[in-house]
Amino acid sequence: MDKVKVGVLGATGLVGQKLVQLLLKHPWFELELLTASREFVGRKYGEVVKWLQGPFTPPELNELIIGSTDLSTIMDSKVELVFSTLPSKDALSVEAELAKRGIVVISSSDSMKFEEDIPLLNPEVNADHVELTKLQSRRGWRGAILKTPNCTTVILTLALKPIMDELGLRKVIVSTMQSISGAGLTGVPSIDIIDNIIPYIDGEEERVERESVKILGSLESQVVKPASITISASCHRVPVIEGHLEAIFIETIEEPDVELASKALEEFKGNKIRALNLPTAPEKPVIVRRELDRPQPRLDRYISNGMSVVVGRLRMDKALRGIKLIALGNNLIRGAAGTSVLTAELLTAKGLVYGR
Amino acid sequence: MDKVKVGVLGATGLVGQKLVQLLLKHPWFELELLTASREFVGRKYGEVVKWLQGPFTPPELNELIIGSTDLSTIMDSKVELVFSTLPSKDALSVEAELAKRGIVVISSSDSMKFEEDIPLLNPEVNADHVELTKLQSRRGWRGAILKTPNCTTVILTLALKPIMDELGLRKVIVSTMQSISGAGLTGVPSIDIIDNIIPYIDGEEERVERESVKILGSLESQVVKPASITISASCHRVPVIEGHLEAIFIETIEEPDVELASKALEEFKGNKIRALNLPTAPEKPVIVRRELDRPQPRLDRYISNGMSVVVGRLRMDKALRGIKLIALGNNLIRGAAGTSVLTAELLTAKGLVYGR
Amino acid sequence: MDKVKVGVLGATGLVGQKLVQLLLKHPWFELELLTASREFVGRKYGEVVKWLQGPFTPPELNELIIGSTDLSTIMDSKVELVFSTLPSKDALSVEAELAKRGIVVISSSDSMKFEEDIPLLNPEVNADHVELTKLQSRRGWRGAILKTPNCTTVILTLALKPIMDELGLRKVIVSTMQSISGAGLTGVPSIDIIDNIIPYIDGEEERVERESVKILGSLESQVVKPASITISASCHRVPVIEGHLEAIFIETIEEPDVELASKALEEFKGNKIRALNLPTAPEKPVIVRRELDRPQPRLDRYISNGMSVVVGRLRMDKALRGIKLIALGNNLIRGAAGTSVLTAELLTAKGLVYGR
Amino acid sequence: MDKVKVGVLGATGLVGQKLVQLLLKHPWFELELLTASREFVGRKYGEVVKWLQGPFTPPELNELIIGSTDLSTIMDSKVELVFSTLPSKDALSVEAELAKRGIVVISSSDSMKFEEDIPLLNPEVNADHVELTKLQSRRGWRGAILKTPNCTTVILTLALKPIMDELGLRKVIVSTMQSISGAGLTGVPSIDIIDNIIPYIDGEEERVERESVKILGSLESQVVKPASITISASCHRVPVIEGHLEAIFIETIEEPDVELASKALEEFKGNKIRALNLPTAPEKPVIVRRELDRPQPRLDRYISNGMSVVVGRLRMDKALRGIKLIALGNNLIRGAAGTSVLTAELLTAKGLVYGR
Repeated sequence: MDKVKVGVLGATGLVGQKLVQLLLKHPWFELELLTASREFVGRKYGEVVKWLQGPFTPPELNELIIGSTDLSTIMDSKVELVFSTLPSKDALSVEAELAKRGIVVISSSDSMKFEEDIPLLNPEVNADHVELTKLQSRRGWRGAILKTPNCTTVILTLALKPIMDELGLRKVIVSTMQSISGAGLTGVPSIDIIDNIIPYIDGEEERVERESVKILGSLESQVVKPASITISASCHRVPVIEGHLEAIFIETIEEPDVELASKALEEFKGNKIRALNLPTAPEKPVIVRRELDRPQPRLDRYISNGMSVVVGRLRMDKALRGIKLIALGNNLIRGAAGTSVLTAELLTAKGLVYGR
Repeated sequence: MDKVKVGVLGATGLVGQKLVQLLLKHPWFELELLTASREFVGRKYGEVVKWLQGPFTPPELNELIIGSTDLSTIMDSKVELVFSTLPSKDALSVEAELAKRGIVVISSSDSMKFEEDIPLLNPEVNADHVELTKLQSRRGWRGAILKTPNCTTVILTLALKPIMDELGLRKVIVSTMQSISGAGLTGVPSIDIIDNIIPYIDGEEERVERESVKILGSLESQVVKPASITISASCHRVPVIEGHLEAIFIETIEEPDVELASKALEEFKGNKIRALNLPTAPEKPVIVRRELDRPQPRLDRYISNGMSVVVGRLRMDKALRGIKLIALGNNLIRGAAGTSVLTAELLTAKGLVYGR
Repeated sequence: MDKVKVGVLGATGLVGQKLVQLLLKHPWFELELLTASREFVGRKYGEVVKWLQGPFTPPELNELIIGSTDLSTIMDSKVELVFSTLPSKDALSVEAELAKRGIVVISSSDSMKFEEDIPLLNPEVNADHVELTKLQSRRGWRGAILKTPNCTTVILTLALKPIMDELGLRKVIVSTMQSISGAGLTGVPSIDIIDNIIPYIDGEEERVERESVKILGSLESQVVKPASITISASCHRVPVIEGHLEAIFIETIEEPDVELASKALEEFKGNKIRALNLPTAPEKPVIVRRELDRPQPRLDRYISNGMSVVVGRLRMDKALRGIKLIALGNNLIRGAAGTSVLTAELLTAKGLVYGR
Repeated sequence: MDKVKVGVLGATGLVGQKLVQLLLKHPWFELELLTASREFVGRKYGEVVKWLQGPFTPPELNELIIGSTDLSTIMDSKVELVFSTLPSKDALSVEAELAKRGIVVISSSDSMKFEEDIPLLNPEVNADHVELTKLQSRRGWRGAILKTPNCTTVILTLALKPIMDELGLRKVIVSTMQSISGAGLTGVPSIDIIDNIIPYIDGEEERVERESVKILGSLESQVVKPASITISASCHRVPVIEGHLEAIFIETIEEPDVELASKALEEFKGNKIRALNLPTAPEKPVIVRRELDRPQPRLDRYISNGMSVVVGRLRMDKALRGIKLIALGNNLIRGAAGTSVLTAELLTAKGLVYGR
């Protein structure tokens, strides 16, 4: 099989770096194009990136020339699929133009996330939603756009899905402790966060509440019916480098049962994609820790190369007459770059990346 | 008025230091006795304390000789009231013996917190519970024991009380981000918490859930009837020096109304003690911040000398059909030492410290 | 005495905030003008400043309208003296124009620091250098420009001066551990510094090496003769909020003697300004701690309201056959805003602010 | 070749964990015995260790039963070589008794470090000092004791050795920024170090100053002649998890030349052990970074699996008329466990572990 030629739009940011790293030795994809903001165009990747994924920028990347994020540059390259980490306002027009011209776009920007024909994918949870892309031909698109959810949502929905399948969900309350890397390279000045917590992340609570019900929704004759769950989030930034921790309180439909829930989480295999043997899919999408004091961000954020959500402290919740638990996910990998790559693998395996 | 002679049992720990600091220039109390663990007895306070309340141990304390925490030492001193920060197992016998001999004991240990005749006091919230001490004569005590709640509980109940009075409370879910000083001088090794979160604090969730309903309960003919609220807590340690932050989700009995709740919080005067003009009582026990990103521990933990709870981000909660908000309190002052001193002032003002 | 009308150019930055705070209730100065960058001009100070000096922006400042940092705005106000925290490139032209028009400018920018007629002042160390301003009339200035040294230099020269006077200095090696606030509100992204050290601060080593010999130099017939000391610095950024720590190794001219040096530091009174009773001058410009493990930034950075340098661990140095010690200073106060205010007080006391 | 049977005395501490991890899949060594403090003896390693080297204790270790650190237990096992991380007072008697009975002991405790027949080894620097062990037969020992230097010393001497060989060293001044892991699992309480620096580490400066001249000394007819260098250290603890950073100032004997020094560092191959192809020896014992702001602890502490020292910022030093630079090493690996394993490999390769 020829490798799919891919590009990364916004390749110098934190998520961009993780994407580049995951794609560099990917068995199915070939990195063809890296773009970045105007000031970096035409310069070498190794010279302009502030690489934080290890002590040295990978040598293959050092000499790579950064392209511009405009339509003609992208179309002139041979990319068949692009990963976009563009800010929402930049993303809106470029992404649609690319889809129109036959490119598959996997994007983490906010734009279009809630349109009916745009899937918001967390593959082990709702791979079937990929079906929605078929509706996109009505827009006159030969390619497609798929959205990767917000990092906090990806982690939450992976932790919820097995419990939803086993016991049903009625209400979910989630209080997050989010790492600073979620805000990118310069998003959180150190003077704001050392010895401190910022109890606010712009737009985050709304994203989590709204995205989750779409992801956990069911696909019925090409329409996603949102899950009948009410979700309430409180989001907070903490002085942790990487890894988002979430305290989750659940009201279940069935009688709550901690052992049943633990078992459902432990045995969750991500059946929606399991048979496809996608290279980035973790053996266990959810890992249950039985120790009293786990998961912890610094110790657990790289379990399964950062692709598993780690849960712990399952216990009865007396206020909601349900279950409470702690979930941890690597916000840059599982929460962003890794899920995007997994989505790209899903599309490739299903023959939905046609080349052009 | 002669000053009440007071002692601090366990005066070298973090809460002990705050107590000593608050008592040093107190208009009503005179520091007569400091005790500490065996190894320190007979030595000068200034030599053994690892003082963290400022650059220098206050000069008045430097030469003070540390006493032993045993009955005879305490009775031989002239103290009429003691503040106890002893660990629960040590506290149990000493405190009762002191009460028997006419001493008033204000203690933050866990022992006896839920006995029917022992008040668990957060003065602005339930000063009337002090009444319970009258029942203690049945134990043959001439003195009394009063308990100061856990730090997380003090902060939570102050934030809840005004809303309870205005809208009624049915369910409360609280997710905490607690500072390391809550675990004392050596409780949290740095290797466990830098760039990390520990999602577990031994016994804390049970304490918060159980203590809060006693504090918010009503006193009816010398019996505290626990509040009919179900509370569920998830407690987490974060890399912050001082100040506990709590994300609180509330199901109200009345129709939830953010403006009403904000107003109730802003106008809360702590009427249960207001008329007494206690020296340590803050002008406003609860301070409401309207900025999007407040309260923050590093910036807000010393508002009103650490005696006010600061709340913010009041907003509708759609899962509980109620209100969610953020509360911050100084865990060492409002959460411990300051509340104990306020309780001592309350007792003094009510004439319940008789001397002996 | 009428208060001197003063302005702060660049009043929203970290040093600007400290200046404003120090000036707000100053007995000699009256805050007349605050300027900030273009985007903030015309708006209220309380609305645009990210105030980090306490939980609330001082109410007197909230409604103050921010002015523009241009010549006409400044001249139209009634200011007689301005404190400038402008970046060097902006400072160069504005400051000179103001001096020409009769304004006294106290500036911390790098520009002109080494010109022969511009004093670089650390008042207790070299108040006599103020004399240089007389030469500025040759430039056609009716006002004057005085420079406040770099934060690291201020702290270093205060720690060195008493030892220089007692034992003479030949060589000085200094290795710094500088707090993030030294880089301003957004200078150090959190992802760069949590669990990390950055062993480089642009231009800092050269500044320290060059500024120190000017400050420690002697004034001989209106010329500063640089001190005959060779200084070598290595500068590092550490995850500390406020307070710069410096490990200093000294080769003395006289036989090194730790007790003599300690005594010289302890007894240093800052005689160059002592008789003037300047309001901001600390009782002891240098405080010597004898404990093994002091000074420490978090515990000692607010000694004397941040205006004293705290030294400790004086001991023999066998490589340089001299003395080594640790010095700590509050980089925002003693290292910047406080020293600027002290310089302004010095000028006022000496009758060098004439009004216009 | 049969694997050498080895034991780790003190296997639950931080250095013990690293040793166990390095030995687990070692091609030459077989882990036969783990000991720990009395309270853990007889229990499973996986149950008592607070494992910080990854999310899970390696499964091979979970069931391993912890032995006692006494002579009979150790002799009853089949170990031929032991790694000792015991505290100095415990180490003194046990280690000598083991050596007497034919065991090779590689120890990082302070005891005996400066005795004439005990080598203090940093293999790439002074592997020839292993010769000293021959003198130990005079003590009636069939085995031997070799010491691993203090972490700060290992890093320093590796950075100095290539420059010493090229330009000669006269004076060295070093100011350290040491991570908290250097103090073990509970050595630094979080309240002491968050937003802070502790400018004192007990005994550390003396260790560095004295150990370095022994390691850099030359072996002449079975006597180590200490290097004629005077070294002065100032040691500081900073809020960094792992990795010690050192600011080093050097007075060279030859004319200082930054390019020559850089080249010497870059080309340093550790010839003393290179031909032996030891499994743990890094390809490059010293790595030179040319970027302005490197090395940095969080980014560079795992270069070459933590076995290389990373240096940067080589520049002229005008005070010492020499060179200054920054060096970083992983204090737990290169600074302790890794150097001990490398020493064990050296002994094995030279046929100095005979079995018994």
